[in-house]
Amino acid sequence: MNDRKLADLLKDRYNIVFKDISLLHSALTHSSYANEHRELHVKDYERLEFLGDAVLELNVSEYIFKKFPQLPEGRLTKLRADIVCTASFSQFCREVGLPEFIRLGNGEQKAGARNRDTLLEDVFEAFMGALYLDQGNAQVVAFLQQTVYRHIDAGQFSSGNDFKTELQEELQQNGDVDINYQVVAENETDFTVQLLVDGKALTKGTGHSKKDAEQQAAQRQLDVLHNN
Amino acid sequence: MNDRKLADLLKDRYNIVFKDISLLHSALTHSSYANEHRELHVKDYERLEFLGDAVLELNVSEYIFKKFPQLPEGRLTKLRADIVCTASFSQFCREVGLPEFIRLGNGEQKAGARNRDTLLEDVFEAFMGALYLDQGNAQVVAFLQQTVYRHIDAGQFSSGNDFKTELQEELQQNGDVDINYQVVAENETDFTVQLLVDGKALTKGTGHSKKDAEQQAAQRQLDVLHNN
Repeated sequence: MNDRKLADLLKDRYNIVFKDISLLHSALTHSSYANEHRELHVKDYERLEFLGDAVLELNVSEYIFKKFPQLPEGRLTKLRADIVCTASFSQFCREVGLPEFIRLGNGEQKAGARNRDTLLEDVFEAFMGALYLDQGNAQVVAFLQQTVYRHIDAGQFSSGNDFKTELQEELQQNGDVDINYQVVAENETDFTVQLLVDGKALTKGTGHSKKDAEQQAAQRQLDVLHNN
Repeated sequence: MNDRKLADLLKDRYNIVFKDISLLHSALTHSSYANEHRELHVKDYERLEFLGDAVLELNVSEYIFKKFPQLPEGRLTKLRADIVCTASFSQFCREVGLPEFIRLGNGEQKAGARNRDTLLEDVFEAFMGALYLDQGNAQVVAFLQQTVYRHIDAGQFSSGNDFKTELQEELQQNGDVDINYQVVAENETDFTVQLLVDGKALTKGTGHSKKDAEQQAAQRQLDVLHNN
């Protein structure tokens, strides 16, 4: 690990200077490296990952709770699950530029662990745990603003690709309702479906597949509900 | 809800005075009540529960992370799961004295929801969310010290009843090992088992059942490992 290069990166991009550099080292140390270099007595990132996972969970929860004051709990939970996941955390780990500084054992190095999403997710979480311990949550929030929140603000996690589920959650907030989609027209290329809620015909949707047509009908009904 | 009585309870026992009383009201309002009293425009606790769940997760994680500096990640995760669960959060909700102040719809009231553990868990989480928003995390920590942490300190969650799992996690930290328990003696009342790790005989245990004997053998081996 090139300490100087990493310190410059964190300082220049995020204005972060670690007080306890051993925390930063641990956050970037895989157990395979710690096991191969027992003489160094270096700790791996696993405990920091445990903590950092919860640091991210709370901060992301608070951010979307405040950003979307009208969003019901079910949709907040769904949105959080989209953000707090392997795919996005590994993306952020790469974006920050951490992968090249990860310390791996020889076997893991050869096996390509440095590009493995689950490992990069772990390192991102561990890095958050280290930053939280070293600098407190205000610095964590400042860092997240430049990384995770920026992507939330840009709509990366709009979670808007499953309108049927969203509609179902909204309609069933106050008890069970009967939701049906019926094909009412069909030609060589398109389906048209009618959304029925408790037997009442609401919006229609059209698409190349039944599924697309249903999504459109659901999306249109969500628009109706949200504009009331 | 008896506002005066609740305010006195929170002030006297926990030195908590809510600035925004509507947050406290929401934390204690079940959706069934909000639905029956739409004219009041009162919010139910679900969004606060979403936030409070993450508030508890982080604070409990940080507490045990610092309290047990030598505990490996696997055991921290297990311990956290013992603390952050329906059984304990419903217990804390009762201990604080919140149940009598929960606002329920008529149907839920008659169905006994006020004594339903999952609902009391939700309310405890929502109360944490409200406290976090109203007073910040320092006040949350002070409250947890008097409730949750006190029980952790008293050993309620020692998680010491599954030594086999603990031993397995410790032994397999650095890769797969073969763990076996063989019955080596048996009489009318007791079993004695021998723990074998990669074929090597380690500790023995005795108990009225094979399971108890295995647990004792595992516990003894954990003691050996932790005293090295």
